[in-house]
Amino acid sequence: MNNITPTILITNDDGITAPGIKALVDAMSGLGNIVVVAPDSPQSGMGHAITIGEPLRLNKVNNLFEGIEAWQCSGTPVDCVKLAREKILKRKPDLCVSGINHGSNHSINIIYSGTMSAAMEAAIEGIPSIGFSLLDYKYDADFTLSKIIATQMAGLVLNEALPPHALFNVNIPNIKPEQCKGVRICRQAHAKWEESFDHRTDPSGKDYYWMVGKFVNLDDGTETDVEALQENYVSVVPVQFDLTHHALRKELSQKWTNIFDLKNHKL
Amino acid sequence: MNNITPTILITNDDGITAPGIKALVDAMSGLGNIVVVAPDSPQSGMGHAITIGEPLRLNKVNNLFEGIEAWQCSGTPVDCVKLAREKILKRKPDLCVSGINHGSNHSINIIYSGTMSAAMEAAIEGIPSIGFSLLDYKYDADFTLSKIIATQMAGLVLNEALPPHALFNVNIPNIKPEQCKGVRICRQAHAKWEESFDHRTDPSGKDYYWMVGKFVNLDDGTETDVEALQENYVSVVPVQFDLTHHALRKELSQKWTNIFDLKNHKL
Repeated sequence: MNNITPTILITNDDGITAPGIKALVDAMSGLGNIVVVAPDSPQSGMGHAITIGEPLRLNKVNNLFEGIEAWQCSGTPVDCVKLAREKILKRKPDLCVSGINHGSNHSINIIYSGTMSAAMEAAIEGIPSIGFSLLDYKYDADFTLSKIIATQMAGLVLNEALPPHALFNVNIPNIKPEQCKGVRICRQAHAKWEESFDHRTDPSGKDYYWMVGKFVNLDDGTETDVEALQENYVSVVPVQFDLTHHALRKELSQKWTNIFDLKNHKL
Repeated sequence: MNNITPTILITNDDGITAPGIKALVDAMSGLGNIVVVAPDSPQSGMGHAITIGEPLRLNKVNNLFEGIEAWQCSGTPVDCVKLAREKILKRKPDLCVSGINHGSNHSINIIYSGTMSAAMEAAIEGIPSIGFSLLDYKYDADFTLSKIIATQMAGLVLNEALPPHALFNVNIPNIKPEQCKGVRICRQAHAKWEESFDHRTDPSGKDYYWMVGKFVNLDDGTETDVEALQENYVSVVPVQFDLTHHALRKELSQKWTNIFDLKNHKL
C-alpha cells in the first residue's frame, strides 16, 4: 500500500440494509476511506443488468453506517458502481468490494449474481475488485469467517500488482473460523440450475409461475470452487470477462471464413 | 442435419412485437419447427437477470407470427429460455436463436445484453445457440443482410458438431448485402462504456439521473469484432462462459495459498 489512504467503494445486491454489507463495512474499516453506494431494494439475480429508459434516484443515508458516507440507489448493482464513480467519487476508487452476499455465488452463479456483476463492472473500469459471498441465505447469518477473509483479501489486492481488469470471486463456507481449512485459489466449476416452475392460478383464474431451481454440479474435475467449499476451504476464483471461445475461434477461422454466401437473396 | 426436423426456439430482448424477432422467424422458416417465447416488454440491458421473488406470466400470442406457436412472458430474456424449455417444449430444442437485436452487441456489450444472455442461458443448458444483432437501433431497421446471415449461421450450427456449451455472438453491419465484404470469425474487443449522468430535478424538487453512455474501444489489436464491423464484415465471436482467469489462477495458486491467517480474530 502506498502512503495515501486508499478509497474503497462498497456495494452489494441484497440492498443497503442487509447485514452482509454492514459486515463488509466493518471488515474494510481499517483499510481506507469507505464510501457505500448500494441498491435501495434487494437485487439478487439481476446479473449485469443496467437501467435503460428509466431515471435513477440516488439518496444519502445517514443512519446505517456510523461516520461513513453512504448512498442508496434505485437501480441495479451495476448502476450503483457507475453512479458511484461518476457522480459521487468523481474518480476511480482504489478498490471496489461487493457483498457480503447472503448466499453462494460459486460456479455458474457468477453469471446470475448482482454481487459479482457489480464487482465485474468495477473491473471493466479498471478498478481492482472483489465479490464476497457467504454460503448462508439467512438474514442473521454469521459473518465472522467472512469478515476475516474480506479484510485479508482486500489488503492483498490493495498491495499487490495484479493484472488490470482482473477481479475475484470469493465464496466462504458457512462454518466457524476454527473449522475452516484455509483458502484455495480455484477455477469456476461447470454447473447449472435445473429449473422447475411451480404452476399456480391467481384469484381471477389466470396462470402464473414461480421459478424453483435445483443446483447441479456437472464438474467432477479438481481445483473447482464447488469442491473447495465442500471441503471447508474458502474458494477464491480469479475472474476475467473476455468471453471469446479462443480454441473454437482458431478452428473456425479457417473452416468458416469463405463458407458464407452473401449473394443468397432468396429471403 | 439428420432426418428429423429440428426444433428451433426463438427469443429476444426487444420484446415479442419488435420487427427484429419477426425477421429472425422469417430467416428460420425453412430450417425447422419454430417456437417463439419472448418478453412481453422491452428488456434491453437486462444482462443475465432472472426473476426471483416474483411470479412469471406466460401467455399465448396468435396474431404476430402466422402458423407459428408463440408465447409472451412477463420476465427477462433468460426467464423466457428457462420457461420455454421447462413448460412449453418440455425438452431441449435443437437450436436457440436470439434477436435480431435492434442495436449492436459486440465487444463488452455481450455482458449487458439480454439478447446474448438468452443465448448464453441456452448454451448453459447444452443447447446450441446464436445471438444476432444489427448495428441499427431504429424500429424500421433494414434486416435484409441480417436475415441472409441468420439463415446460413443457423444451418451451419445445426449441421456441425460444435463443442458442447459453445455459443455465437453475431453482429451485422448496417449496410446492404452487396456492400458487405464477408464474415469474420473474431474475438471480443476490449472496450467499455464511459457514462455520464444527465442530472435533472423532478416537479417536486427531487433529483434524478438519466444514464448516458459513450462507447470507447480500448482495443487496437487485430481480429476483434469491432474492427471487423468497421471494415464492413459481419463479426462472429465464438463464446464460452468460463470466467476463470486461468493465468492468474496459476500464478496465485502458489503465491497466495498459505498467506491467509484464519486465526486472526481481531474483528
